[in-house]
Amino acid sequence: MANTKQILALNRFDARHAEGFDAELRSLIARRQATFGASSVLVYERPIRMVRAEGVWMFDADGRRYLDVYNNVASVGHCHPRVVEAIAKQAATLNTNTRYLYDNIHDYAERLLATFPAALSNVVFTCTGSESNDFALRLSKSFTGGRGFVVIETAYHGNTEAVTEVSPSSFKTRSVPPHVRTVPAPDQYRHPTNDVGARLAEDVAEAIADLEQNGVKFAGLLVDSIFSSDGIYADPAGFLKQAVDVVHKAGGLFISDEVQPGFGRTGTAMWGFQRHSAEPDIVTMGKPMGNGFPVGGVVTRPEILESLCETTGYFNTFGGNPVAAAAGLAVLDVIEDEGLIENAKEIGAYVRSGLQALASRYPAIGDVRSAGLFIGIEFSLPGTTDPDPATASYVINALKERGVLIGAAGAYGNVLKVRPPLCFARDNADFFIERLEAALSER
Amino acid sequence: MANTKQILALNRFDARHAEGFDAELRSLIARRQATFGASSVLVYERPIRMVRAEGVWMFDADGRRYLDVYNNVASVGHCHPRVVEAIAKQAATLNTNTRYLYDNIHDYAERLLATFPAALSNVVFTCTGSESNDFALRLSKSFTGGRGFVVIETAYHGNTEAVTEVSPSSFKTRSVPPHVRTVPAPDQYRHPTNDVGARLAEDVAEAIADLEQNGVKFAGLLVDSIFSSDGIYADPAGFLKQAVDVVHKAGGLFISDEVQPGFGRTGTAMWGFQRHSAEPDIVTMGKPMGNGFPVGGVVTRPEILESLCETTGYFNTFGGNPVAAAAGLAVLDVIEDEGLIENAKEIGAYVRSGLQALASRYPAIGDVRSAGLFIGIEFSLPGTTDPDPATASYVINALKERGVLIGAAGAYGNVLKVRPPLCFARDNADFFIERLEAALSER
Repeated sequence: MANTKQILALNRFDARHAEGFDAELRSLIARRQATFGASSVLVYERPIRMVRAEGVWMFDADGRRYLDVYNNVASVGHCHPRVVEAIAKQAATLNTNTRYLYDNIHDYAERLLATFPAALSNVVFTCTGSESNDFALRLSKSFTGGRGFVVIETAYHGNTEAVTEVSPSSFKTRSVPPHVRTVPAPDQYRHPTNDVGARLAEDVAEAIADLEQNGVKFAGLLVDSIFSSDGIYADPAGFLKQAVDVVHKAGGLFISDEVQPGFGRTGTAMWGFQRHSAEPDIVTMGKPMGNGFPVGGVVTRPEILESLCETTGYFNTFGGNPVAAAAGLAVLDVIEDEGLIENAKEIGAYVRSGLQALASRYPAIGDVRSAGLFIGIEFSLPGTTDPDPATASYVINALKERGVLIGAAGAYGNVLKVRPPLCFARDNADFFIERLEAALSER
Repeated sequence: MANTKQILALNRFDARHAEGFDAELRSLIARRQATFGASSVLVYERPIRMVRAEGVWMFDADGRRYLDVYNNVASVGHCHPRVVEAIAKQAATLNTNTRYLYDNIHDYAERLLATFPAALSNVVFTCTGSESNDFALRLSKSFTGGRGFVVIETAYHGNTEAVTEVSPSSFKTRSVPPHVRTVPAPDQYRHPTNDVGARLAEDVAEAIADLEQNGVKFAGLLVDSIFSSDGIYADPAGFLKQAVDVVHKAGGLFISDEVQPGFGRTGTAMWGFQRHSAEPDIVTMGKPMGNGFPVGGVVTRPEILESLCETTGYFNTFGGNPVAAAAGLAVLDVIEDEGLIENAKEIGAYVRSGLQALASRYPAIGDVRSAGLFIGIEFSLPGTTDPDPATASYVINALKERGVLIGAAGAYGNVLKVRPPLCFARDNADFFIERLEAALSER
């Protein structure tokens, strides 16, 4: 497996290449490096200076526009007027915390919980997906009495200390700690099988057994059901269920990380776990929840929440504040009123068929995998399933030159993630496919 | 030491008391309990249904107004028009992440860093104080190679798993883990000393020695320099420096948690550590940074940041987004343009002298401690220094009935925290003192 350093390096700005840039861009990059230091990560060989965005489009300082097929934060469209208005109005009226009563957080809690199985009847609001997953790990530990977790070997679940420990894709030079076991991604392209669900379930069972043999009681399985950072593995719907059954039989909890697939993106339902008919014990949410306003959340069963709250207080100052609730409610309204789940299904299928047509003409495309508007395009060396990150990297930069923003994922950095705002239209799909074909044909 | 459960219970809504409430309030509380479950924490015997806030005032659903002397999130004033406008304008224009370039985050980074000692030249943006402290712990561990931390025994630093471990005030039934040592708060009222700084430094030295004797290498001291959750210990300015010298001599880092004292509240400078002439290695920020918009940050030296980034990737999706930057810049502008640090000093001194006058007439007030607009009012049993949480609890509810919002802190829950928005004016101070006197006189 390539390490993350390699993958990030593929499409990361390298300061040694800044010499040809104009003075303004060089100055902005220098200011950035002076203040952000080692934590600065800019994408593209020549970074983009963004000034404005609207719907599926972003605009740079030179007035160039880019079709955004990368961004699942602005999930209902950049600067969606209904979300912006909700934020502006509420920020001008009341912004406080949940130690007081205010109506909109309860409207939001009820609207949100209505989209989940009835057993998941409690919600805790946070500010980010990282905070949500951090809290979910703690809930799992307090409820099961265990501390061992199983994750996918290329997983990313967030940036707190505890969550980084279960996010192997963040490791540059180290490996997972003793309380964590990893299992391979459900990759049927490179490792064919008749039953990917059975294989994943076996891998999870082995990982649990290995934890227990080493004296680490199992607490839970944490999975992003669209396997975003792993390279996007979607089909067949339902394959995750067997692994979840293994988890429950072992007394552990299934945490469904919906930061990536959630809020309708997979086109079949509101949540990724629903495609797999797998019942989670805890669901975590983040990125698209407030369309860019920092909102996160954890949904679970009351007894799981009680197990933690009995021993330890939890309060999140900004979590569930009235502005976050207003943004969250507006996002739910837009998803419903604009039919975005249906749109994700329809346009997702349209993009997928366009990509499959391209794949028949361009052998560099080894595989296309998708659910709704979450699509992976895997580049392989001709005639093999060997990963081809060089082509992925070329395409990312070539698409940028042609006005399309896209990123890579997967253990080898050779899978393009197609993950546009859910208001992506047919003509946006045509624009994307046409530019992708141009990039491939001109290589 | 009383535990947190006791303290929180003092001013926490108890559902058994809801029977006398009107139908609307009962219904809202029932909806709340059904969705928030065990995590619901409402303040006041009869919770307040807030609908609007402006400057130092909050308004409930019945049109009653409350002077807010509790809230340091809306630090430059509730719904400050300049902050609201900055958020609204930026949210309508561009909200993306720091993998692209955009100007305002660099304007903000530079403005913010200019308020710190030159050695602290790097900043990492997060969304909350909890994320900031979580990251600071990781930085300290990677830079020192240690994992042991020293904190105050009643400290609160946030809600992630790692930060909860160094937040003893969150523990209801458990104690600190083996990698953490606690030292007593610098309490000169209950435990008089000629040199509180020397005593704190000795306690810290002992704690470090104890860690090392138990095979835990020391990583750092994490302190809120106004000791907010501990009961507010402010004087003499400078007393923290000796402890910090001990920390540095032992090879550890000093993390200054500025979530509470930061952004001018202590009236002498922008940051609490400046009152103590103590040079931090890492500074963490949260609550007041975006006046309610979820913004946090960590400031440190480049080599400390490098030590972590070499081994582990860190990226924060919402951290430093353009809307957060706009809110943060507006807060800095308001602090400067409205002279809020000077105001904190002047009005803080005015409130303090008013409270001292009250103390001479009401023996229940055992001590008044303050820096700027962060003031602690300690209630003691007559003629003793024995804590009197019952009076604190009475006053909190009596002040609410008289239109003033206030909360308690400290190991015994007997210290009122006076922590209003920094635009608190002389007539607001008069209103507060007058209502406090009314509450005390009518007991």
